Amino acid sequence: MPPSGKVKVGIIGSQFEADIHAAGFQLMPEEAEVVAVASPTPGNAESLAKRYGIPRVFLNYRDMLKEPDIEMVTITAPNSLHAQMTIDIAIAGKHVVCEKPLCMTLAEADEMIDTCKRKGVLLAYAEELFFTPKYVKAKQMADQGAFGKVYLVKQSEKHFGPHSPWFWDMEKAGGGALMDLGCHGIAFAYWFLGRPAIKSIYAHLATNVHAAKTKGDDEALCIIEFENGATGLIENSWARRGGMSDRSEIFGEGGVTYADLHMGNALPTYSEYGFGYAVEKAPSTQGWSYPVFEEHWNYGIPQEMRHFARCVRGKETLQSTGEDGRVVMQALYAAYASAGLGQKVQMPYKPTTNRPVDEWLNRKGK
Amino acid sequence: MPPSGKVKVGIIGSQFEADIHAAGFQLMPEEAEVVAVASPTPGNAESLAKRYGIPRVFLNYRDMLKEPDIEMVTITAPNSLHAQMTIDIAIAGKHVVCEKPLCMTLAEADEMIDTCKRKGVLLAYAEELFFTPKYVKAKQMADQGAFGKVYLVKQSEKHFGPHSPWFWDMEKAGGGALMDLGCHGIAFAYWFLGRPAIKSIYAHLATNVHAAKTKGDDEALCIIEFENGATGLIENSWARRGGMSDRSEIFGEGGVTYADLHMGNALPTYSEYGFGYAVEKAPSTQGWSYPVFEEHWNYGIPQEMRHFARCVRGKETLQSTGEDGRVVMQALYAAYASAGLGQKVQMPYKPTTNRPVDEWLNRKGK
Amino acid sequence: MPPSGKVKVGIIGSQFEADIHAAGFQLMPEEAEVVAVASPTPGNAESLAKRYGIPRVFLNYRDMLKEPDIEMVTITAPNSLHAQMTIDIAIAGKHVVCEKPLCMTLAEADEMIDTCKRKGVLLAYAEELFFTPKYVKAKQMADQGAFGKVYLVKQSEKHFGPHSPWFWDMEKAGGGALMDLGCHGIAFAYWFLGRPAIKSIYAHLATNVHAAKTKGDDEALCIIEFENGATGLIENSWARRGGMSDRSEIFGEGGVTYADLHMGNALPTYSEYGFGYAVEKAPSTQGWSYPVFEEHWNYGIPQEMRHFARCVRGKETLQSTGEDGRVVMQALYAAYASAGLGQKVQMPYKPTTNRPVDEWLNRKGK
Amino acid sequence: MPPSGKVKVGIIGSQFEADIHAAGFQLMPEEAEVVAVASPTPGNAESLAKRYGIPRVFLNYRDMLKEPDIEMVTITAPNSLHAQMTIDIAIAGKHVVCEKPLCMTLAEADEMIDTCKRKGVLLAYAEELFFTPKYVKAKQMADQGAFGKVYLVKQSEKHFGPHSPWFWDMEKAGGGALMDLGCHGIAFAYWFLGRPAIKSIYAHLATNVHAAKTKGDDEALCIIEFENGATGLIENSWARRGGMSDRSEIFGEGGVTYADLHMGNALPTYSEYGFGYAVEKAPSTQGWSYPVFEEHWNYGIPQEMRHFARCVRGKETLQSTGEDGRVVMQALYAAYASAGLGQKVQMPYKPTTNRPVDEWLNRKGK
Repeated sequence: MPPSGKVKVGIIGSQFEADIHAAGFQLMPEEAEVVAVASPTPGNAESLAKRYGIPRVFLNYRDMLKEPDIEMVTITAPNSLHAQMTIDIAIAGKHVVCEKPLCMTLAEADEMIDTCKRKGVLLAYAEELFFTPKYVKAKQMADQGAFGKVYLVKQSEKHFGPHSPWFWDMEKAGGGALMDLGCHGIAFAYWFLGRPAIKSIYAHLATNVHAAKTKGDDEALCIIEFENGATGLIENSWARRGGMSDRSEIFGEGGVTYADLHMGNALPTYSEYGFGYAVEKAPSTQGWSYPVFEEHWNYGIPQEMRHFARCVRGKETLQSTGEDGRVVMQALYAAYASAGLGQKVQMPYKPTTNRPVDEWLNRKGK
Repeated sequence: MPPSGKVKVGIIGSQFEADIHAAGFQLMPEEAEVVAVASPTPGNAESLAKRYGIPRVFLNYRDMLKEPDIEMVTITAPNSLHAQMTIDIAIAGKHVVCEKPLCMTLAEADEMIDTCKRKGVLLAYAEELFFTPKYVKAKQMADQGAFGKVYLVKQSEKHFGPHSPWFWDMEKAGGGALMDLGCHGIAFAYWFLGRPAIKSIYAHLATNVHAAKTKGDDEALCIIEFENGATGLIENSWARRGGMSDRSEIFGEGGVTYADLHMGNALPTYSEYGFGYAVEKAPSTQGWSYPVFEEHWNYGIPQEMRHFARCVRGKETLQSTGEDGRVVMQALYAAYASAGLGQKVQMPYKPTTNRPVDEWLNRKGK
Repeated sequence: MPPSGKVKVGIIGSQFEADIHAAGFQLMPEEAEVVAVASPTPGNAESLAKRYGIPRVFLNYRDMLKEPDIEMVTITAPNSLHAQMTIDIAIAGKHVVCEKPLCMTLAEADEMIDTCKRKGVLLAYAEELFFTPKYVKAKQMADQGAFGKVYLVKQSEKHFGPHSPWFWDMEKAGGGALMDLGCHGIAFAYWFLGRPAIKSIYAHLATNVHAAKTKGDDEALCIIEFENGATGLIENSWARRGGMSDRSEIFGEGGVTYADLHMGNALPTYSEYGFGYAVEKAPSTQGWSYPVFEEHWNYGIPQEMRHFARCVRGKETLQSTGEDGRVVMQALYAAYASAGLGQKVQMPYKPTTNRPVDEWLNRKGK
Repeated sequence: MPPSGKVKVGIIGSQFEADIHAAGFQLMPEEAEVVAVASPTPGNAESLAKRYGIPRVFLNYRDMLKEPDIEMVTITAPNSLHAQMTIDIAIAGKHVVCEKPLCMTLAEADEMIDTCKRKGVLLAYAEELFFTPKYVKAKQMADQGAFGKVYLVKQSEKHFGPHSPWFWDMEKAGGGALMDLGCHGIAFAYWFLGRPAIKSIYAHLATNVHAAKTKGDDEALCIIEFENGATGLIENSWARRGGMSDRSEIFGEGGVTYADLHMGNALPTYSEYGFGYAVEKAPSTQGWSYPVFEEHWNYGIPQEMRHFARCVRGKETLQSTGEDGRVVMQALYAAYASAGLGQKVQMPYKPTTNRPVDEWLNRKGK
C-alpha cells in the first residue's frame, strides 16, 4: 500500500538554508512535516530542532537515512557534498530535494539523475524562483500573451556576500557570485521562456571587493542566447551594499513588466531606534530601510516545499528537476569558460575542469 | 470528546466575498475544510461549490445549520442580515465568522455577542486587515519600538464602487463608503494602537460621483481621537478610478512607515494585448497597470480563516471579536452623526437611528 | 521712462529662506539680479552676500530701502515682521515679495494690500507651490480634463521641525505646523481648484512631540469644503522623521494623480560613507537615503522669482497675490478656531484673536 | 574686441531634436539666443521659427553660415551629415554644437576635431546626460565618496523606436539602437568614471521586433571594461513598449544609487479621458501613465546649451568635447565588431568599415 498522509521529511544541514526549509514546511503543513534533521556539528541540529519542534536529531545524515518512515530528504550542505548525499539518499530509497546549484560537475549531475531514476525516487532541484509568487505572476501574464513574444528576460540577485564561510572557499563552493546567485537567474530565464535550449553564453566576471576573502567572482554579468531567439541578461553580485536585492524584468514586443522582490514590495521605513528585522542581509534597521514581510512566502519557499511533497504523493508533476539543475550546471561551466576566454561560448559546452570556477581561473591573466 | 481534525465549515453566500472565503480556506487547508455552502438564488451555491469542490449545497442556510458535523459558519450576506444569521448559527451551536461591518445597530451587536456567549460559540469578526501580512509587519515594527510613540495612524481603502448591487442600497447596506470601507480603517487604527478607547470622531462625507445610484456617501474622511493621545485618519472612496487601493501609514515620534498593498507591491506592467487579471476592480489590463500577485494571501484571508479555525480548536485566542466589531459599529454611528452635525462627536456615542447612514442623511441639508 | 533691463532686487533676511531666494534668482538670472541684502545681526548679511556675490549689505533694511535703483524687495523675516516691512517697502515705492504666511492678522493683511495698491507696487505672495514643476504638471492635466471633475485635493508637507528657532515661538510665528506648512496646502488646494470660495474648515491639531519646545501645534489635519463642492485635505507635521516630505494627490471622477516631490523624485541611495547633501532636513547621508536633485528648481523657487520679476516689468500678470495670502490667513484663523471648538467653522470667519494659534490655545482644555 | 552679450545661435534642422534645442535655449535665455534656423524642406524652418520666435529662416544651412553675427551653430541633422556640416561651420568661423553620435567614421571625427582646432572654434558634443540633473547628482555623490570605489555603472535608454524615419535607414544612421541610444550610455559610463581608457567591449545585438523596417539592431547589450577596473553595462532598445525609459544605476564597494528619469520622477496617473502629454514617446494618456514634468530641464538640455554658450564666452571650460564623441564613436565600432565576432574586442579598435553597424552586419550569419 502506498504511503499516505503527510510526507515525512528529513533535513540535512542546520544553518541558514536549513532554517528556511524548516520554516517553509511549517508555513504550509498540510502536505508534509519535518521529522528529523542531521548536522555533523554537535548542537547545531538540536538547535534547529528546538526552534521548529523537530523530534529526531542526527549527527550523521547516513543514520537519518536509516529511519524507515522518512520519505523525502532535503540537502542544504555545501555544494561539494550534494552529489554524494543525493546518491546516498536515493540508495536509501528516499526522495531528494537538492539545494542549488545541483552539484560540482556534469558527471556528478548525471550520476545523481541516473541513481534517482534507477531507485525510483524524485530528484527535486530546489529552484525557488519557479515558485516565487511575484515571478509566477510575471510568467502567467507572459503565458497569457500580455507581452507578445518575449525577447529579453533579465534577472538579478545581489547582496554583499553570503551568510556561510564555505561560500568563499572555491573548493567547497565551486564558484562565486555567478555560481551561488547566477544559478537562479539562468534557471529563471530558461524556465520563464519555456525551457528553450541554450545556444550560447557570454560572461563577464570580476573580483572587485572581496579579493582578500575569495578567489571566486564577486560580480557577474551573463548574456544568454536561447534557441528561440530570446536573450537572458543575468546580473549577480556579492558586493552590493544595502541588503538583499532580487529583481526580474521581462521585455516582449507587446509589453514589459518589472518585478522587484525587495524595494518593490517593501514598507519604506524610517526608524530612529531600530527594530527586529528588515530583510535578508540588511545592514541595519536604523535610519531608512526597506523591510519586507512574509519573506519566505514571497520567495516561494513554502509553496516549493509543498509542491515537492505533493509530487511525492503523485498529486503534482515535478516542476523543477535534476535535469533543470544539470542545464544550469552546464551553463555555469560555459559562463566561467567564456569569462576566461573573453568570448561567447557555444552550447553544449564540454567542461574542461572539475569545478566551474576553474574554467575562468585557469585562463585568467593568460 | 471534543472534535478534532479539520474544522468543518459552511459558508452563507455565493458571490464575491464567499469566493474569497472559499479560496482562503483552500490556500491553507491544514486546519479547516469547507463542506457546505448556502445561497438562496438557485444555481449560485452550486457554482461556487463546483469551483472549490464543496460537497454540500443548500438554498436555505437554516437547512445547512442542521448538518451536525459543521462546526463553523461564515456569513457573507448583506449587512442587514448579519444579526439574524449570527443568532441562528449560534443557536444551532456553531461558531460564527461574520463579515464586516458586524451588523446594523448596536442592539443587534449586543444580541449577537450575548447569544454567542450564551451558546458557547465564538463570534469571529472578519477584519482581515488584522492579518494582512504587510500591515502585520508594520505593527510588529511599531511594537518593537521602531517608531517610538505612534501619534498618527492613517488607513485608506478606495476604489470605484462595490461589486454587488446591494451595497448601493442603504436599506441593505446601512451606509456607503464609510461603512463599507471605513470599518476597515477604524478597526485597523484601533487594533494598531493596542485598542485604546475612542475619545471622539469627526467625519466629512460626500456623494460626489454616484448620486444617481445611491443616497449613501461615496467619499469619506474620518479623524479619530484615541484616549492614548494618538490620532487616526481614515480615508475611503467609492469614486477612485484605476482599481483597488489600500494603504496605511504610521507616524511616530521616532519614525515612519508606509505600507501600500497595491501600487507598492505590484509589478508595474505595460501590455499591448492585455492579460487575465491585474487586481481587484482594475478597469483594464491593457496599457499600463499594477497587477498584484497572491492577492488573497496579501490581504491576509487564508491567514485569517486559518486563525479562526485554530481558535475553534483552542489552539489560538481570538484576535478579532464581536466586541471589536461593536466598537467599529459605534464609531460608524458617531462618524455619520458627526458628518450630519458638522462637529466632532464625543464617544461613547448613543445612536439615534437604526442605520448608521441615517445619522447623516437625517441631518443633511438642515 | 520706465525701468528696463534686469529687475534689481534687495533681500531682507540672511538665513535659510533668504539663501533660497538668492539661489533662485541666481539660477534664472535673465530677468532679475540681487543687488542688496539686509539683516540686523552683524556679519550675517555679509556672509550671504559673499556666497552669492551680492554687492551691497545693510544692517537695517530701512537703509536698503533708500537705494533708488532697487525695484523689488523680498521679505524672509519672521512672520510677525511681515506687515511692517511690507508697508515700509511699499512706501519706499518698491515692489514686495512677502514670504508665507502673509502676516499675523487680517487687519495687517488689509493694510498691506491697501498700502501696496495705493503706492502702485506689487504685493507678491511667495507661495512657491504655484510654481512647483511637478504640481504645475498635475494642474495642467486637471485643467485639460484628465480627471473630470476634481472632488478631492490632498496636500501634505511634513518634516521634523523648522530650521530657525523663531518658528517655535508663537509670539513671532503666530502658529505652529499648520501655520508654517498648512499655509502651503491651503493655498495649493485653493489654487488647484481655480480659487473657489472656502465654505468651511475643520482642523485637528496636536502637540505630540515638541511640547517642551513650543506651545504651537506640531501636527495638523485640516479638511476644507469649497463652494464648488470639492474638498481639501491638508496634512502637516513638524514631527515626521526622515527628512522633508511634500506630496499632493488629486482625485477626480475621471482619474487620479500622485505627485511626491521627495521619495517620488529621489535617487534611492545606500552609502556606507555618507556624502554632501541628500535633501532638506535629512537626518543623515549614511545608510539608505532619498537624495533629490536640483532641489530649488523642483520646488519652483527660480521659476517663482523669475515670474515676480517679469510681473514688475509687465511681462506677466501676478499669479500669487496678497489677496491669496489673505484668503490663506483667514482660513488659518478659522482652522485654529475649529480645532479649539471641535467643530467645522463656516467661512468667512471673523477672527477673535491677534494670532491665529490663539484661536486654538485660548479654547484648549476648556 | 571680443563679442559680448548673448551668444547668437543658429540651428540646423527643424524636427524633434531642433525643437529641443530651441526649447532649451528659451528656457535659460541669459547666455544665448537663437536667431536663425536652417532646414531644406520648405516650410519646416518657418514652422519652428514661428513656435520659438526665431527671426531668420534659411533653406540652405550654408546661407545661414554667412550671417556674420551668428557665433554658434547646432547640428540636429542625420548622423551622416554631421561631419560635413561641422567642417563647414568651423570654416565659417563659428562654434559647433554637434548632436550625438558625433559622425560616421573615425576619419570624419578626426577631421572635425582638427578643423575646429585649426579654425579656433569649439567643437561641443551634445551629450546631454553630462548635464541631466538627476545623473549629475549621482556623480556628485560618487565624487564625494558616497560609494567608495565604483565598480559598475549601468545606463539604459529604451523606447519603441525613433521619431524620424532616417533612423531606420542604416545609410543615414550608421547603426541602430546601439548607435542611437548606446552612444549615451557609453559616454555616460566614461564620464561618470572620470574618463578612464576603455580596455575592451562586448556587445550582444539583435533585431527582434522591427526587422521589417530596418537592418539595424533594435536591441543592444554592451559590457565595457575600463582601465581602472570598473565595468559599464549599457542596455538599449527600440522595442520597449510603454514610452521612454532612461535609467542609471551606480554600484560601488561602499554603496549604490538608482536614478530613473521616467518612472522614478513621474506622477503615476490614471485618466479616463486623457490629457495633453505624458512623456516622450508615450503611447497614450488614457488609463494609467507616467507623465513627467519639465522634461527638457530634467534631461538637462537648457543646462547643456547654457554651458556651451558660456564656453563660447570663456566663462566655462567645455565639458563635452569632440574628443569625447570620438571615444564613443570608436567604442561603437568595437561594439558592433564584437557583436559580429561573438567575442570581447580589445581597444583601441581599428574600424574595418565605413559605418559602425557594418562591423556587425558584414559578419552576421557567417
